[in-house]
Amino acid sequence: MTSGRIDWIAVDWGTSHLRLWLMGDGGQVLDRRHSDRGMSKLKPDEFEATLLALVGDRLPAGRRVPVICCGMAGARQGWAEAPYAAVPCLPGTWDRAARPRTSDPRLAVAILPGLSQARPADVMRGEETQIAGYLAANPGFDGVLCLPGTHCKWAHVSAGEVVSFRSFMTGELFALLSTASVLRHSVATTGEDQAAFSAALDQAMARPATVATDLFSLRAESLLQGLDPVTARARLSGLLIGIELAGARPYWLGQEVAIIGAGGLADAYATGLAAQGLSPRRTDAEAMTLAGLAAAHDALKGQL
Amino acid sequence: MTSGRIDWIAVDWGTSHLRLWLMGDGGQVLDRRHSDRGMSKLKPDEFEATLLALVGDRLPAGRRVPVICCGMAGARQGWAEAPYAAVPCLPGTWDRAARPRTSDPRLAVAILPGLSQARPADVMRGEETQIAGYLAANPGFDGVLCLPGTHCKWAHVSAGEVVSFRSFMTGELFALLSTASVLRHSVATTGEDQAAFSAALDQAMARPATVATDLFSLRAESLLQGLDPVTARARLSGLLIGIELAGARPYWLGQEVAIIGAGGLADAYATGLAAQGLSPRRTDAEAMTLAGLAAAHDALKGQL
Repeated sequence: MTSGRIDWIAVDWGTSHLRLWLMGDGGQVLDRRHSDRGMSKLKPDEFEATLLALVGDRLPAGRRVPVICCGMAGARQGWAEAPYAAVPCLPGTWDRAARPRTSDPRLAVAILPGLSQARPADVMRGEETQIAGYLAANPGFDGVLCLPGTHCKWAHVSAGEVVSFRSFMTGELFALLSTASVLRHSVATTGEDQAAFSAALDQAMARPATVATDLFSLRAESLLQGLDPVTARARLSGLLIGIELAGARPYWLGQEVAIIGAGGLADAYATGLAAQGLSPRRTDAEAMTLAGLAAAHDALKGQL
Repeated sequence: MTSGRIDWIAVDWGTSHLRLWLMGDGGQVLDRRHSDRGMSKLKPDEFEATLLALVGDRLPAGRRVPVICCGMAGARQGWAEAPYAAVPCLPGTWDRAARPRTSDPRLAVAILPGLSQARPADVMRGEETQIAGYLAANPGFDGVLCLPGTHCKWAHVSAGEVVSFRSFMTGELFALLSTASVLRHSVATTGEDQAAFSAALDQAMARPATVATDLFSLRAESLLQGLDPVTARARLSGLLIGIELAGARPYWLGQEVAIIGAGGLADAYATGLAAQGLSPRRTDAEAMTLAGLAAAHDALKGQL
């Protein structure tokens, strides 16, 4: 933790968790804080108290501190609904931010809108801010952004706008299959096997239709042939990311692709795309969230 | 319940449930009983007491009653392991049944083996008995059997043997997605929409790779366009059965297909296959289980 005057607070308020950054007036991060009080655990009138419990000790008296939020806090069941902006549009439609009233006079809260697409129907909340951050850091980028996560997003970006996007349930499928299906008996909770991952990815890209049976084979190989649980985990990941890459081919084929993400999951997408002959750029998700929230803060600060 | 002398007991002991039939000496069903004490809830030494709690009142003194079991009671974690028979083989390899000892002298238990396949790795426990029942009722059948369920099986049968088979995790995926994923907010727990089912099935058969994003669209259409939850349920079913039919095409294309199953799930597979120009036969799963267990009883009764 760094001491210093708090200029504003950056917040990524998701479904299951909340992360925030206390920002200094030179753009530096003074402190990071997080909580498991995500949107799904809160009623609308509990958001302010949750925020105060995390940052109340650092709020100055006699001054309103801008709080810029992205993510599910802006959902209908969240703190205050920030209606989606429909693509094609800028990733940051800051002027449409929701402005919940607060009881504490030290807070000036803005919740940034997500993006929607009519056909195929799709939505995002939070990733649009990472995209805005990426474009702030890489002005003029024309290509595709891949944002791995529970619902991985692929966004086609051109002339500063999000042209189209699609979400894949890959991360949620992996979590459900590895912890709540019959495969839980056969799949390790951690560990990597690069060769097994790559082979399964190739298999699913070549024959996406058989994924539902190739998944069951992991259980059968475990029973019949003692399949190593770490190998099974890598193959489960490879099958699910492989079918996603097959389905997302219109997004990445022949495109400049950048992956916004961190850790093993982003590595897995990078490996998969490299096997298709791409050289995806890599950039950190937290940094892009902060850059997007900072861009929103710059745009909104006269109004807060 | 019918009174009469019990000749033997037919048991289908699955992972989550147990169903049994008290059989008269003319092959008639005297009584049916069931319990939720499936294999997954029992230690090996609890199976006998579970069985006695269900049928002890009807067991005669001074005589051993054959109890013929199929299903997960024969798994490694079950009552007594009945090792898999490897295809190609007869569906009923009765002479390899496991014979757990019982404390109660009125029981003579045989647990029928499942089937395994080395490449692609696959296993079944219980469905082989339905297949044996189908072949007992339809001698000379040459074609493909489809057995919808948690892990739907497709079995190629020729000259009385199971030649090959594959399991698809479709039923388990439907259960997880409709109750434990983000789609649970958008999908009704009951209800049918035939047109929506058929359109989603066609969509998934034509573009299996995009299923993971087409699934997310159900959530997005619900949020953006108020998609009817019954329609969403039908589309979820259509997408998952559609990708299965695409992956199982080598099994059903140009084949005589019979569906062993009951209710809406079997109807859904029948509808999907009919849309591909097939006229699948339909037969009841419970009747085939009983027919298979009866065939095993006939084969084993001299030894029990």
